[in-house]
Amino acid sequence: MQQALRPHPEAPIDDAVAAHVERALTDYLVTRHADMAEAAPSFGTAVASLAGFVLGGGKRLRPTFAWWGWRGAGGAGAGVDARAVLRGVSALELIQACALVHDDLMDASAMRRGKPTVHMDFAARHREAGWLGEPDRFGAATAILLGDLALAWADDMFATSGLDAGRLAAALPPWQAMRAEMLAGQYLDVLTQARGDESEATALSVARMKTAAYTVERPLHLGAALAGAPAPTVAALRAFGADIGLAFQLRDDLLGMYGDTEVTGKPAGDDLREGKRTLLMALGMAMAGDRAAVLRAALGADDLSPTTLADVRGILVEVGAVAEVERRIDALTATALAALDRADLAGPADRVLAELAVAAGRRTS
Amino acid sequence: MQQALRPHPEAPIDDAVAAHVERALTDYLVTRHADMAEAAPSFGTAVASLAGFVLGGGKRLRPTFAWWGWRGAGGAGAGVDARAVLRGVSALELIQACALVHDDLMDASAMRRGKPTVHMDFAARHREAGWLGEPDRFGAATAILLGDLALAWADDMFATSGLDAGRLAAALPPWQAMRAEMLAGQYLDVLTQARGDESEATALSVARMKTAAYTVERPLHLGAALAGAPAPTVAALRAFGADIGLAFQLRDDLLGMYGDTEVTGKPAGDDLREGKRTLLMALGMAMAGDRAAVLRAALGADDLSPTTLADVRGILVEVGAVAEVERRIDALTATALAALDRADLAGPADRVLAELAVAAGRRTS
Repeated sequence: MQQALRPHPEAPIDDAVAAHVERALTDYLVTRHADMAEAAPSFGTAVASLAGFVLGGGKRLRPTFAWWGWRGAGGAGAGVDARAVLRGVSALELIQACALVHDDLMDASAMRRGKPTVHMDFAARHREAGWLGEPDRFGAATAILLGDLALAWADDMFATSGLDAGRLAAALPPWQAMRAEMLAGQYLDVLTQARGDESEATALSVARMKTAAYTVERPLHLGAALAGAPAPTVAALRAFGADIGLAFQLRDDLLGMYGDTEVTGKPAGDDLREGKRTLLMALGMAMAGDRAAVLRAALGADDLSPTTLADVRGILVEVGAVAEVERRIDALTATALAALDRADLAGPADRVLAELAVAAGRRTS
Repeated sequence: MQQALRPHPEAPIDDAVAAHVERALTDYLVTRHADMAEAAPSFGTAVASLAGFVLGGGKRLRPTFAWWGWRGAGGAGAGVDARAVLRGVSALELIQACALVHDDLMDASAMRRGKPTVHMDFAARHREAGWLGEPDRFGAATAILLGDLALAWADDMFATSGLDAGRLAAALPPWQAMRAEMLAGQYLDVLTQARGDESEATALSVARMKTAAYTVERPLHLGAALAGAPAPTVAALRAFGADIGLAFQLRDDLLGMYGDTEVTGKPAGDDLREGKRTLLMALGMAMAGDRAAVLRAALGADDLSPTTLADVRGILVEVGAVAEVERRIDALTATALAALDRADLAGPADRVLAELAVAAGRRTS
């Protein structure tokens, strides 16, 4: 199994949150994989692939926000409690692994982080081995089961992180809300595509639930709850998280249309091909007049040509949809920073979260 | 939302375990559905369908075994602790809802409990509404997300059942093993079909993991762990559970081939059509000589005709495979009852579990 770069367990967590998260995930997955490989060797092979997926990349955004929620609300940066919290919030990456593996299957995506997606990988293994039945069905079944395992292990890792009963109980409301909101957001996304809903309001509501709540607001809430933060601190942190989470998604939409495939690891135009109803497209269709038909025809087109993709990109810039999304990212960053001020957090979390807020809106991958 | 028959909360749980489980599930799902319907109304509609699925049938086998594991190990039959245990073990039905919804999708099954499966139901809704994209893909996405939600809610329901921290901690090992074994069993099942593995050993190992461990052994273990049972009691209960769980699966295989569709709710010959490598078929292929080719050709045949199904049924009887499976069920029931004796359980659990053991091997649905 792939080993991530391992910081010394006593090295300050604040200085390298993502590396400590990877260390915690590696330790957890090595143990569980070994147990599984012993109990059911052939499932062990599939589980190794899941572990490789979890350890093979990702920005560790959710654990990072949760960690800084904990620190900002006065949680310790070192010691037994801090290490338990670090292990607990690292479990968010296992929820995310479930979301990605299942989302890729639902979207029939071929690539993720520059590699074949799980369902494609196992369909290829089936094909190469010349097994019975349809390779795609075997790939889909494996992706469903490995995603389920990641979701179950997320709860297991959280429950066995070493957090005491009081902290675990305080963390339950955001933990439970987060998983439900992730799934609700995914469903709204699928439903919106099916209904062909072009409204700005729907695009915003999908982004709020699927990304803002699940990726930023609830992880911050979780960290603050673990630290026993008072209600006004939690409320200000959540307001901050909701705004920068939305800004993060709007940047993601722009990257999905204009990003560098080498950097994002996803084929250019994937969102468009999949028919994702982003705010960018909603604004574009509302602002493009006669040319809205070009956007509408490209949305969800399996056979999207490079020329059409270039046309869509051009139209969205020319009618001002891109500029409008950029304006909203700036406005959300500003309101987020104001909420952060109100939260009156302990240092260095106040500074780090402000930097993360700005970075979320400006990132290139 | 459908309301199950509600026993009075103070009515003795021992007298109507399944009804109390349904009451606990109804209470839990009503609350969570209401929260979700408020936060995301359109997901609320899908969640209502999941709740209907959970409350719409099933034998409540896993909570029933867990309850009697608790009682047999000396857990109270009434009072605050008993009610918390009842709620906690009812969560096993949510794990099972995930397993069934995802299994039906992986197997492309059309019917479950006499109704359309979740993915078929939502594909039909998509078709009727005339939405964009492929109905089957929408149905599959909805089934994936609702199964995920059921799995997440299983952990939520268990964590918020009112069990104290000590009992929750004692229950973690069987709880974690059970979910992992369920998924490992499903994967082995899919893999065995793909590989066309005809061996008796493989058929037994799938049945042991997918059914025996997940359905009987671990629920009993969970109940005993909640009661703080000593290791020898746990070991004897697990041995009992492993044997009657396997007997249960062998009976299931016979019902899948010879059962009455009106009673089982599944089309006759479904296992055969899906290419399930049951012990019955493994024995049949090993015992049938020249006629094994007929069995082999029917296994996994999408276009299985009533004539071929009748041929297969006849061959399995004539070569003695059915009689051999019946013999094994009897032998497993006998060893299970001997293990139950060793467990030296408190009454009335000793008597009830002995009855369940016999019923598991003899049931008709």
